[in-house]
Amino acid sequence: MNGSGIDFVVVGDICQTPSIDDLAILTNTALAVGSDGSIVWQCPAEDVSDIVEAHAAQGRLQRLSKGQFLTPGFIDTHIHASQHSYAGTGMDKPLMEWLDAYTFPVERQFAHLPTAEVHSLYRRAVRRTLRNGTTTAVYFATADRQASEALADVCAEEGQRAFVGKISMDRHCPPGYCETTEKSLEETARFIESFRQRPSIVQPVVTPRFIPTCSDELLAGLGALVREHGCHVQSHMSESIDEMQFVEAIHQLKDDHHKHNPYPPCPTDAEIFDRHGLLTDRCIMAHAIYLSEGDVERLRARGTAIAHCPLSNFYFAGGLLPVRSLLRSGVRVGLGTDVAGGYSPSMINAMQHAVTASRALSIQQHHERHRLAGVKPWEPFPAGSSDTTSPALDWVNALYLATRGGAEALNMGKQLGLLAEGYRFDAVLWDVTIGDNIDFTGSESRREQLEKLMHLGDDRNIACVWVDGQVSCRRRDRPAQADCKARARDSNSVSWRADNRSAHRQMGA
Amino acid sequence: MNGSGIDFVVVGDICQTPSIDDLAILTNTALAVGSDGSIVWQCPAEDVSDIVEAHAAQGRLQRLSKGQFLTPGFIDTHIHASQHSYAGTGMDKPLMEWLDAYTFPVERQFAHLPTAEVHSLYRRAVRRTLRNGTTTAVYFATADRQASEALADVCAEEGQRAFVGKISMDRHCPPGYCETTEKSLEETARFIESFRQRPSIVQPVVTPRFIPTCSDELLAGLGALVREHGCHVQSHMSESIDEMQFVEAIHQLKDDHHKHNPYPPCPTDAEIFDRHGLLTDRCIMAHAIYLSEGDVERLRARGTAIAHCPLSNFYFAGGLLPVRSLLRSGVRVGLGTDVAGGYSPSMINAMQHAVTASRALSIQQHHERHRLAGVKPWEPFPAGSSDTTSPALDWVNALYLATRGGAEALNMGKQLGLLAEGYRFDAVLWDVTIGDNIDFTGSESRREQLEKLMHLGDDRNIACVWVDGQVSCRRRDRPAQADCKARARDSNSVSWRADNRSAHRQMGA
Repeated sequence: MNGSGIDFVVVGDICQTPSIDDLAILTNTALAVGSDGSIVWQCPAEDVSDIVEAHAAQGRLQRLSKGQFLTPGFIDTHIHASQHSYAGTGMDKPLMEWLDAYTFPVERQFAHLPTAEVHSLYRRAVRRTLRNGTTTAVYFATADRQASEALADVCAEEGQRAFVGKISMDRHCPPGYCETTEKSLEETARFIESFRQRPSIVQPVVTPRFIPTCSDELLAGLGALVREHGCHVQSHMSESIDEMQFVEAIHQLKDDHHKHNPYPPCPTDAEIFDRHGLLTDRCIMAHAIYLSEGDVERLRARGTAIAHCPLSNFYFAGGLLPVRSLLRSGVRVGLGTDVAGGYSPSMINAMQHAVTASRALSIQQHHERHRLAGVKPWEPFPAGSSDTTSPALDWVNALYLATRGGAEALNMGKQLGLLAEGYRFDAVLWDVTIGDNIDFTGSESRREQLEKLMHLGDDRNIACVWVDGQVSCRRRDRPAQADCKARARDSNSVSWRADNRSAHRQMGA
Repeated sequence: MNGSGIDFVVVGDICQTPSIDDLAILTNTALAVGSDGSIVWQCPAEDVSDIVEAHAAQGRLQRLSKGQFLTPGFIDTHIHASQHSYAGTGMDKPLMEWLDAYTFPVERQFAHLPTAEVHSLYRRAVRRTLRNGTTTAVYFATADRQASEALADVCAEEGQRAFVGKISMDRHCPPGYCETTEKSLEETARFIESFRQRPSIVQPVVTPRFIPTCSDELLAGLGALVREHGCHVQSHMSESIDEMQFVEAIHQLKDDHHKHNPYPPCPTDAEIFDRHGLLTDRCIMAHAIYLSEGDVERLRARGTAIAHCPLSNFYFAGGLLPVRSLLRSGVRVGLGTDVAGGYSPSMINAMQHAVTASRALSIQQHHERHRLAGVKPWEPFPAGSSDTTSPALDWVNALYLATRGGAEALNMGKQLGLLAEGYRFDAVLWDVTIGDNIDFTGSESRREQLEKLMHLGDDRNIACVWVDGQVSCRRRDRPAQADCKARARDSNSVSWRADNRSAHRQMGA
């Protein structure tokens, strides 16, 4: 433990989740970040006071103030960068109609927009997520290779760790937004090659959109690319009622010669992906609401993870993901915003919805059990029966999913998701003295401060975001404040008497 | 329609919900606010261009800019002002344990705190909600009369329309936080009397905490006060599994002499309140998750409303409120944050959770139906069965609940919840050009702007809040911005070389 190769040292508190039920708060901890972006060492500050002082003398010490602390950066395991522009609108249709009405028309345009506009659109998405503390994002771009490469370039420029996917799809796509199988594979290969020119924080991810839009030939070809390049894989799996129906319908059409069997068995999404070598231990499947027991075992055996998108699931899935039960089965789970299926790009928001979705699932299980037993929801069970309702996730569990859970899901649990020796320095600096959006009493413990931030906080409370040891985003200026009442009537009268334009400026300012 | 008695005229767009499924967008509308705080007239601006110009000449015109529009102010029909200090923490217990662990200890202190501190605590709660666009709040204070009067004073000073309740409770309360029946009634009467000294925007509301803590004698006495003074009433009703169990237990104890019947019939919360004249058409009951059919009919017949608190219900209710079905039954429903049972004081947040809770209910109904029919969730029903799943609430419905629904619930549908002639001018000025928290493309329709704000917005997007024609809260300063990447590495290096204190300031600033 020495000073060589160290870029800077941070001294302060660190809050993180080594495991799902364990919130570790390391007070007055010193953490050294190497010039390569990794954490060289981390230990109690009093054990290394000489080294800390030496770095302070060289102007390479960041001593956190009393209201500040670090957490690992958020890992958004499922987000559509191309859909950011309409996030917050158009939440009114089932998935398959939603794609036709909103998604496909927007995504299709990316092939025809001027390069500068593509960059601008993607930059807004990347900056918005960075600002909300997302240090790693697993992105869907669009089917257009060049526009998808632009997203990768933007992530590299903005300093966000990212897995970027050019979408592959060759059937059941709308007019003007469909690839041939051959072109899809060629373009995906070129896309992967292009990453040789980029820094290692940006990586390609093979991205079949989902089973409905991918032929077996396409999936087989993508499987070969995955084996050749060792890429990560992402897609959607068993997401919604209408997607399940669509997959059943196309497979029943295909097996139409089984005239003796009106309902030929339909393979599940997991079986189809697996058939083509796409379920690997570097694969993240979004949603996965309607898994069979066999699917769960298949995901576990392959080491394939699920990107849990709780907000989006409320709208599109028609079901609630049993996160605890999947984790118990040995399936890894990360958290995702699923913009724009989820309207918010904030992982804090995703954490909050992970908890409410989990509580909704507990409610559903509780009511089903009671109804089956013929007793009211608040009545005790008949003797001999036991409560099998899973305990709901709480905010600590959600923080785990948003950080370490995501790292594990990416099979990068040794590099990301913790602030510890050997890990990359991907971190968020929280500050309870800024933002003006939460009323702190000043008597909260560090744990309670963190709890308030995870429930009530937003980007206003984030002072700085580092990725790979470098600052990617930091706050500047003073926060806007609201001047509530008291002298309002008087000051108001003044502005009425000013000319309208300046009155507007005062109001809006 | 003329200029006499008019304080100012606003010209711009108005978005509001005259009924639950109806979003009305009135473009380029002129609205005149009288010196008494009411809306004197409202009509298309081109129809009154002369009058508008005349007011402009007198400096009494507020012409909204292109990015601005008005909605009616939010009406929070259920919020505990005394619990604001710990909102965002302590969400880990069932209701009855939660009250003992967090609520009662905090509330009890209000009787012993210095007056200035009581004012300060309440002022933070009131300003926080005002800033989030809550123009009317229906507050629980604590059992202490003087502290509760302080809350009413603060509301009057800050200019928030409020119904303020001194809590009444005389049994099953913790040590040091319980009233005698006699004192509770005396103090409630004194509390009501004190409102003669305050402006009419602040009104008392008779507030039995809930059935578990209120004896029949107390409820009867409160019923008499309601009849005498014509006050509003509020309480909690059939809220959670453990509260239902508690009520059953105390009523079975009471009826213990019915030895011949081991399970004497237990009256519901609604029956007990009604027995004492507390279910009126100026009564709002929070939660009401576990209503019998008889209860629903009772609420409808009495004109009693429900304060729907979706976020809090995810945590404490163990059930989901069937809002659509209640509205169809003729029961009025408003929206509430239920701070601190709900962690967020923002009605935008409450709207979002109203939608997700409703979608969770639809999911629950869908899955129960399919399981009963013996088919998978995505499979079609057996012939002859029909889908009885209620359509989920969407954001327009939620906006209705947060504004006009709340006004109706308060039996003030002729004064609040719309920006129209004869209504009070309680309004929120939204501005899509401020806040820096949402990426607008610039091509959104007004409806889409509103939709984005209701999904992604927060207090940063609120430029001004009026109550009764007067400004209660307005933004000042520029918004804080985040400086994402690009030159970040360089500027960072500079700050490392500065002294630590200024480096911190730069980061936190």
